[in-house]
Amino acid sequence: MRQGSSGMGQRTATRERILQAALRTLATEGFAATSARAIARAGGFTPGVIYYHFEDLHDLLLAALEYTSANRLARYRAEVEAATSASDLLQRLRALYAEDVAEGHTSAVQELFAGASSSPRLANGILGQVQPWVEFTEAAIRRLLAGTPLEQVLPAHALARAVVALYLGLETLTHLDRDHTQVDALFSAIEPAAALLDLTRPASGASTAGHTQPRP
Amino acid sequence: MRQGSSGMGQRTATRERILQAALRTLATEGFAATSARAIARAGGFTPGVIYYHFEDLHDLLLAALEYTSANRLARYRAEVEAATSASDLLQRLRALYAEDVAEGHTSAVQELFAGASSSPRLANGILGQVQPWVEFTEAAIRRLLAGTPLEQVLPAHALARAVVALYLGLETLTHLDRDHTQVDALFSAIEPAAALLDLTRPASGASTAGHTQPRP
Repeated sequence: MRQGSSGMGQRTATRERILQAALRTLATEGFAATSARAIARAGGFTPGVIYYHFEDLHDLLLAALEYTSANRLARYRAEVEAATSASDLLQRLRALYAEDVAEGHTSAVQELFAGASSSPRLANGILGQVQPWVEFTEAAIRRLLAGTPLEQVLPAHALARAVVALYLGLETLTHLDRDHTQVDALFSAIEPAAALLDLTRPASGASTAGHTQPRP
Repeated sequence: MRQGSSGMGQRTATRERILQAALRTLATEGFAATSARAIARAGGFTPGVIYYHFEDLHDLLLAALEYTSANRLARYRAEVEAATSASDLLQRLRALYAEDVAEGHTSAVQELFAGASSSPRLANGILGQVQPWVEFTEAAIRRLLAGTPLEQVLPAHALARAVVALYLGLETLTHLDRDHTQVDALFSAIEPAAALLDLTRPASGASTAGHTQPRP
């Protein structure tokens, strides 16, 4: 039975430190070089600390994926809910993508996808993390199209999966060529379409922020 | 100096047999397990045959990527050029994607992407193979939109990169969950939009097959 001299707060803080070290190692060293030893070196602790908090390296990598995915999803959710129009939403998404790249989220996730090639357990874990993004995207699309002529035409679920696939593909290309200006160019290219969509929304209709829960 | 008792035709045939064995091994065994020995076993020849035709394993994998990419691009080009409307094009693309999956192209390419994580040389090779697809897609989009109201609104180059990214992301998801019915659902979802686009094209205008070169 595991016992620690530190309290729950300390334990959670150490766990988070390990998760962040794992993500940093994935992003900078790549999947193949992300050993417990490399993660410990990146985080400034001993490998033993990892095995106190996680069953094994795969357990840690899956937890790191869940951690970064949940963090980023919370950020995306807050920004998407705060958006007041399609144009505004596009600006927020552009800033979020830049954050993904700058924080190393994009690289870490892409390295985990690479690792899924040799680990069915990791592949399953990744699939489990894709689902909340599809659901979130579907809800966002429904809000975005509410009251526009496209509401009846576009199938929100299939479109949501396509948007998540597009996002993954853009990450793959960005991770390969380290050039996120191409994604910037894509955001710029979509701007006129977003402005057009905003024009088709009745002034009295729902905005993209048309939800009822209070935000902190 | 390399000398073979076989003629050029025989040599090309053997080279192709090795390339196909490499792709099959990638698709069924995964990148990590794709050794020269595994490829030789899959193809029914000795590992020495590989080193007669290729410098090393990476040289073979890059050649295999170029081989399958060029083959698929030729198939896509022929189908896209033969398409007579957006709806017809969509049906052809749906069949092509099913071919990609059935032939193992999707799996082999995704495994090479995974391998790019640990090989900058492979990453560069992949990026080199992405470019022709972007150019092909851009030309196809220009033909597709010619004469429609979208021609002036949609930026063909940025859109082409997005379509290639979408395709890569769909491949990634299909390779993870082995479920290509999701992509089928996406094609079905786009059908009404394709039909709508066909309605906006002037009857006297250019069809998507509006090119001048003769086809074999």
